[in-house]
Amino acid sequence: MHILLTNDDGYFAPGIQMLYKVLSNTGYDVSIVAPEGQRSATGHSITLFNPLFVSEHLLKESLKGFAISGTPSDCVKLAIQGELVPRPDLLISGINQGPNLGTDIFYSGTVSAAMEGVLLGVPSIAVSLASFEYQEFEPAAAYVAENLKLFRKLDYKGLINLNLPGKPRNEWRGLKVTRLGKAVYENIFEQRTDPRGRLYYWQSGTMTPDNESDTDLWAIQEGFVSVTPVHSNLTDYANLSLWTEELAKLK
Amino acid sequence: MHILLTNDDGYFAPGIQMLYKVLSNTGYDVSIVAPEGQRSATGHSITLFNPLFVSEHLLKESLKGFAISGTPSDCVKLAIQGELVPRPDLLISGINQGPNLGTDIFYSGTVSAAMEGVLLGVPSIAVSLASFEYQEFEPAAAYVAENLKLFRKLDYKGLINLNLPGKPRNEWRGLKVTRLGKAVYENIFEQRTDPRGRLYYWQSGTMTPDNESDTDLWAIQEGFVSVTPVHSNLTDYANLSLWTEELAKLK
Repeated sequence: MHILLTNDDGYFAPGIQMLYKVLSNTGYDVSIVAPEGQRSATGHSITLFNPLFVSEHLLKESLKGFAISGTPSDCVKLAIQGELVPRPDLLISGINQGPNLGTDIFYSGTVSAAMEGVLLGVPSIAVSLASFEYQEFEPAAAYVAENLKLFRKLDYKGLINLNLPGKPRNEWRGLKVTRLGKAVYENIFEQRTDPRGRLYYWQSGTMTPDNESDTDLWAIQEGFVSVTPVHSNLTDYANLSLWTEELAKLK
Repeated sequence: MHILLTNDDGYFAPGIQMLYKVLSNTGYDVSIVAPEGQRSATGHSITLFNPLFVSEHLLKESLKGFAISGTPSDCVKLAIQGELVPRPDLLISGINQGPNLGTDIFYSGTVSAAMEGVLLGVPSIAVSLASFEYQEFEPAAAYVAENLKLFRKLDYKGLINLNLPGKPRNEWRGLKVTRLGKAVYENIFEQRTDPRGRLYYWQSGTMTPDNESDTDLWAIQEGFVSVTPVHSNLTDYANLSLWTEELAKLK
């Protein structure tokens, strides 16, 4: 089985490097096509108005690693549609440093890269270590490797969004299959003045976690592993026929 | 009623400027918070690692226009959460030069800005003129103004994705309420060599339209106005309980 790895923290980030190490030691054929640097919060953006440069990094004889000057979704497109590597049986995006939960997944380069895999017909998993501080990626990578066959058995055409608690593995409280919660941010823009007196804004803010149970935000807050089935169809089917009637009067 | 306009073609693009002109002439209070330049295909990306600069442009005494150094979604966040303008009753993103149809809406800055409005609780419409060449924005803007009350009457919490045929208005064939189709691209990466001999890739490719009827791609291809209800919930509810059973064996 050939696994393609990508991420949004960049080719040399510890999360993807650890995942590569553990998966290839487990016996999988693994290639990496990832951004050359940090691309967090780049969402599903792609590069149309600039060239994409590629640096090759040796992994093993048969499979290669490529660092790309573009976004996470560029990486997936270039890997699969540009045939940089053999067509993968599975795409894994991550392991991200930090959670990718609730409505925040719209901004996430990690999740968007996995969604790009889904759009191109490749089963995809986004993996995030849900802490910005806790950096032990080995237990997280081992968890993915140990359970990969079970995830594959779901035979899912959408995206599996996996978030792992950002703490030692013996403190994880088991698994919850969750729905996406709503990520609400407060105090999000900080006003500052630059050395030349120009006003500018930094986007920051703290998230108020969604306390409704069954959400991914709740599960991670409570120390569970969160797994969410994420589809790619944004059509709101419930309104199709209603609207056809209501909008008949449009000029 | 206060309408906030944004887009991904930039503050001075003809589509948003025409929409401003027509809507304010119709009697609406309109402000603009839009990117300072071209931001097509930036998806739902936001700017976390750079400051956001703001240039003020005079519109009317009471309402202002702001050009932002960030992405379309930054503009919506800064306008609403950063309170650059009074909280809008309606957000309109566009009029975009070019279609925003099918799975392509994942890449669209125009649609993502409207989705950001939805996430912040503001009813939002994305408007696109479905041609890269046809530049007559006045009939498109007039269509939006004439039918705004009807769209508002839907009282929809999601996003209204409106695509208008890229041809003279007397050739439009009426309205179809549509589902999102699948946008499939072919021959997407062109290999070139720079003056110093470095290989690079340009992303391009042609789209094969989705010929299934009832899709937005089909409607526009056939000369109809396309209106699609787009929700913000990516959870695939159908699999929640099934997965809970299947994944009980996870270590």
